[in-house]
Amino acid sequence: MRVLRLTVAYDGTSYVGWQRQAEGRSIQGVLEDALWHLDPACGPLHAAGRTDAGVHALAQVVSVGVHTAVRVDAVRRALNVRLPPDVRVMQVVEAADTFHARYDALAKTYRYRVWTGPVLPPVEHRYAWHVPQPLDIVAMQEAARHIEGTHDFAAFQSSGGDVTSTVRTVFSARLLTTEDTPLLRYEVRGDGFLRHMVRAMVGTLLEVGTGRRPAAWVADAIASRSRGRAGQNVPPHGLWLVSVEYPEDPSGTAPPV
Amino acid sequence: MRVLRLTVAYDGTSYVGWQRQAEGRSIQGVLEDALWHLDPACGPLHAAGRTDAGVHALAQVVSVGVHTAVRVDAVRRALNVRLPPDVRVMQVVEAADTFHARYDALAKTYRYRVWTGPVLPPVEHRYAWHVPQPLDIVAMQEAARHIEGTHDFAAFQSSGGDVTSTVRTVFSARLLTTEDTPLLRYEVRGDGFLRHMVRAMVGTLLEVGTGRRPAAWVADAIASRSRGRAGQNVPPHGLWLVSVEYPEDPSGTAPPV
Repeated sequence: MRVLRLTVAYDGTSYVGWQRQAEGRSIQGVLEDALWHLDPACGPLHAAGRTDAGVHALAQVVSVGVHTAVRVDAVRRALNVRLPPDVRVMQVVEAADTFHARYDALAKTYRYRVWTGPVLPPVEHRYAWHVPQPLDIVAMQEAARHIEGTHDFAAFQSSGGDVTSTVRTVFSARLLTTEDTPLLRYEVRGDGFLRHMVRAMVGTLLEVGTGRRPAAWVADAIASRSRGRAGQNVPPHGLWLVSVEYPEDPSGTAPPV
Repeated sequence: MRVLRLTVAYDGTSYVGWQRQAEGRSIQGVLEDALWHLDPACGPLHAAGRTDAGVHALAQVVSVGVHTAVRVDAVRRALNVRLPPDVRVMQVVEAADTFHARYDALAKTYRYRVWTGPVLPPVEHRYAWHVPQPLDIVAMQEAARHIEGTHDFAAFQSSGGDVTSTVRTVFSARLLTTEDTPLLRYEVRGDGFLRHMVRAMVGTLLEVGTGRRPAAWVADAIASRSRGRAGQNVPPHGLWLVSVEYPEDPSGTAPPV
């Protein structure tokens, strides 16, 4: 069996999330449908991150075993012909027989986009969350530093997760502003993320940004390991899976903490 | 009667264009509906550029006479509460009693976005046209210079326009590339544009970019004043009305040619 590594981008607006569900269109579903035309006996699809309903991806990574001998560029083109325009296979490469997009991932980077201007531009309404009130960015940047490192992140996990441990390592958590637009980006890179973890982090940072809590409170919220002590989940449409790193990548050595 | 100047942004994907039509949703229609809640006796809306179906705007300018005494920021908020998220009033300011968004415009800038990479990213599928074949950008840049100046642009006008003269002045016509993405932007600033003129210009430049015609042919195509001699119209969804300039603007002196 030949294993392919697919880099997939999608606008999650019209989907129930990565994972196939009883009702509604999923990214996995449309991708499997396209793949079955090429190889009816292909193996199951595994994605690096099982993104929720409404969450977008710039470069989700998916592994799949196939029997077809079709070359990688032709696979990419054949899939894109079948896929809707809001899901695109950006790249297909040959992977090792043992490659598994989820288990082999060393690090994932997520971005959450917040529009802080008075009016949310039409082109952003699917892709950024609108927070028009004034935010203390410096305090939020300070608060974000408390998230970095290895912690038990139970305070940021929604119920319904199926993990055995809630300990994760966040290599970096940064709040970035842009020069000419009122766009705030929260970029977080870690070895793994719990269910709704990034959205809970951003909700927690906004407690600090709006002045309801001091920056140091974020450390207390994490230490509490209690979901009720951290901020609320922000909406999914501002969230993007940006990239996934693997040991075999040219730059994919063990990520620095 | 008080005259307001509205700066309006929209994603034109789901609209029949600026102008109200017998069938389908128009930008003018949703904006008038929102305005009528505020002032049932408001005057007609005039837009600087009557954009076609599928065309987007970053800063369309609209003038309207109103009787309400509501302050400009409250007008903006009241309109945005009523409008769908793909149409936003970005700014409302008081204008002179005589201000007319179309007749008073000194210059308009349009942008056409072309994605030249092998795969069109999902976030671009509504906002850029996909041209995956190789393009000779230098030849297109040379060709674009033939468009600058005062010409009879009949060769770039679709039938159905209601103008008496097809002479227009193009102050600048530039083809811009971006460092890190395969995005090509055609930026054109002029004193006015004929029906489908920008889309015909881009279709004409692509005749040069794909090597079917030399750059100098663009001058011949313009001189022919015959629609059949220029390139085809490219699709509307890559087109953006970027800005409109007026004499009363701080920077709105007579535009340099």
